[in-house]
This record gives sequence, C-alpha cells and structure tokens, in this order.
Amino acid sequence: MIFSNQTKKLINLLAKLPGIGPRQATRLVFHLVNSEKETLTELIKTLDEVKNINTCPKCFFINEDKDEKFCYICRDESRSPSSIAILEKETDLISLERTNKWRGRYLILGDLKRGGFLNDNQNARLNTLKERIYQEHNGKIDEILVAISPTAFGDLAAQTIMKELYALTNKITRIGRGLPIGGDIEFADEDTLSEALRNRN
Amino acid sequence: MIFSNQTKKLINLLAKLPGIGPRQATRLVFHLVNSEKETLTELIKTLDEVKNINTCPKCFFINEDKDEKFCYICRDESRSPSSIAILEKETDLISLERTNKWRGRYLILGDLKRGGFLNDNQNARLNTLKERIYQEHNGKIDEILVAISPTAFGDLAAQTIMKELYALTNKITRIGRGLPIGGDIEFADEDTLSEALRNRN
Repeated sequence: MIFSNQTKKLINLLAKLPGIGPRQATRLVFHLVNSEKETLTELIKTLDEVKNINTCPKCFFINEDKDEKFCYICRDESRSPSSIAILEKETDLISLERTNKWRGRYLILGDLKRGGFLNDNQNARLNTLKERIYQEHNGKIDEILVAISPTAFGDLAAQTIMKELYALTNKITRIGRGLPIGGDIEFADEDTLSEALRNRN
Repeated sequence: MIFSNQTKKLINLLAKLPGIGPRQATRLVFHLVNSEKETLTELIKTLDEVKNINTCPKCFFINEDKDEKFCYICRDESRSPSSIAILEKETDLISLERTNKWRGRYLILGDLKRGGFLNDNQNARLNTLKERIYQEHNGKIDEILVAISPTAFGDLAAQTIMKELYALTNKITRIGRGLPIGGDIEFADEDTLSEALRNRN
C-alpha cells in the first residue's frame, strides 16, 4: 500500500479534471497535504461557492448573478441580440471579448468531440437558438458568426452548423483564417497560406 | 467585467497550485460550473479529508493513519532504519518504491529551488536525520543514498548533502547515472554518455 482508499479517491477525482492526469493529481495531493490548513480551508470554501454559479440558459456562459436569469452579456441592451457568435468554449468567449470587437451576443456549444459531430447536448443548444430566432426575430436574424477553431474537426462542425442555420440569418460567416500577426510566410503551413491567399484584402 | 471577485479568487487560488497556470485555472472553473453539483460536493468532501492527513516527522512523507505518529514506511520493522535514501519529492519516493529494490527508509527534503541551495526547512530536515543518527545509531548508520535527480542544480544539492552527512555513514552513494533502458547511444548527450562510461560494470 502506498495510499489509503480516501487518498486514492481524491487522486482519481482530481485526475478527471481537464488537463490534469494521474501524475499531476498525485503531485497536487502531496502539495495540499503540505499546505497550511488555512489555505486548504480557503480553497474548499471558494470551491463550495461555485455551486451558486449557474449557466445562462440563453448563451450557456456562466451566470454569476443569482438574482438574474440571464448572464451579464445576454442582459446587455447595448449588444445586438440579432448577431450571434457560435463558440465551442467559454474560454473562446473570453478571448473574443478581449478584442472588444464583437458587439453581438454568443452561443456556447461546449467541447467538440473528435470527429466534429455535434452531440445531443450541442444540438439541443443549437435548437434553443433556432427557436429564439423564430419566436423573437420572425425567423431571421442579422448575422451569425461561426467562431469555431479552424481545425479538421472544427471545420466539419462549422459546416454542419452553417447548414443548420443558413436559412435563419441574413449573413453567416466563419472566423477569418490566415497568417497570425507576427507570423512568417516562410514557416506558415500550406493550408494556412492557402487561406491567407484566399482571404487577401 | 467578465468574472465576479469570487470567481477571480477561485481562479487565483487554483493558479497557485503546482503545474496549474491562470489559463488552466480558468478552464477548471468553467468545467466545475458545468459539472453536476454532486460531483462538486464529492470533490469538496474528499478535499476536506486531506486536513486529516499528516506529515511523518521522521521521513516527511505523508502519514494517513491518524492513530500513528509515523508513516507506514517508518513503522515497517522489516525495513532497515540504518539505510536512508534522501529524496526531493514524495513522487520520487513512489517511483523508488515501485522498483521494490530499496528496503531502507527515506528522508524527503522538499522541492529544491533553482540554484541547488538548501533552504532553512530542508536544512532542518537534514538536521533531524543527523540527530537521529547520533541518538539512535551512535553517530553512524550503514548507508545513505542521495537519490536527487542528476540535473545541474540537483548535482549541487547532492554535493552539499554528501558533505554534510559524509562522517555519519559507512557508505554514501548517489543514484547511478547512465543510459536509460531503451536509450540509444547515438542520441545520448555527452554528459550522460560520460557518466555511462564511468559507471560501466
């Protein structure tokens, strides 16, 4: 025996978190055992408050305001409800928000599985958007931006999404592909360079 | 605003854990918000039980048995208290235990800082070993194995440790250096190859 069942359980629980493998989980447990009890108590208390955070039923970002049904973006009247960016992850939303260039709203689908197919939950989220377009926008909105990362599976998912929503929007685009700022033509791969040529402006 | 102060605090606390940066901490928070409340409750409950795990005052590994002062390795009469392996981390102990080849006991120093100097805490741990050797072994034990990883800083720390303990043991060794099993001479770096030549047997 090296660990008690209790400790093994904690290692297994931590190893299930995204980006944490069994080895790092073990290291975390040792770190926590060696931490001050107050540090651990504070971490536990703060984690406990996560239970009070809800998911926005409109865009599926987090909604931290217990007194509100929707998140602060979906409540923001200055942002057009007729422009929707469709994203994979909450962290993608944060990156887009940092640009200060998207003044529409969002729909977060959740992590795409390998293969690029949408799962039931993701289809259900797309359906909430479709229904809202029918009910609140007479079946058509101004713009949908499919901001899914340009990977092989992302491309497949983006195609599916665009096919599904094509008829419900005046304009449907994908996030632009090309050379990253600071990138070097010499070292760019062929696919990126092809897209950069196609998107010349 | 993207996050409330509460969420920011959780991100900061998680980002302080070893191997977790601010970006992964953010991703973890989103993951936890989207988790089932029961999963979160279970994680918190299990984390809370870490408070009951102590550190063994002899070897500084974890001691999960609340009714015992020392850890199960230090209590194991079949393991020689006169052979001590000095390690940096608990995870190094686990790796050595997996070989089933070390039947002595251990002393864990804690993470070495860049520079290879021992900090106050690490010197204090070495001193507990020295005192034990004086009091329980008449000033000399059979063997000390300095099992510190053979890095630049590890080598420096190992030298310091060996100088400190030289007079208190019949035999003091460092963990063997050479080609890893499955390694290829062609691709081994010069330092490893020099050590492998020196340690030929």
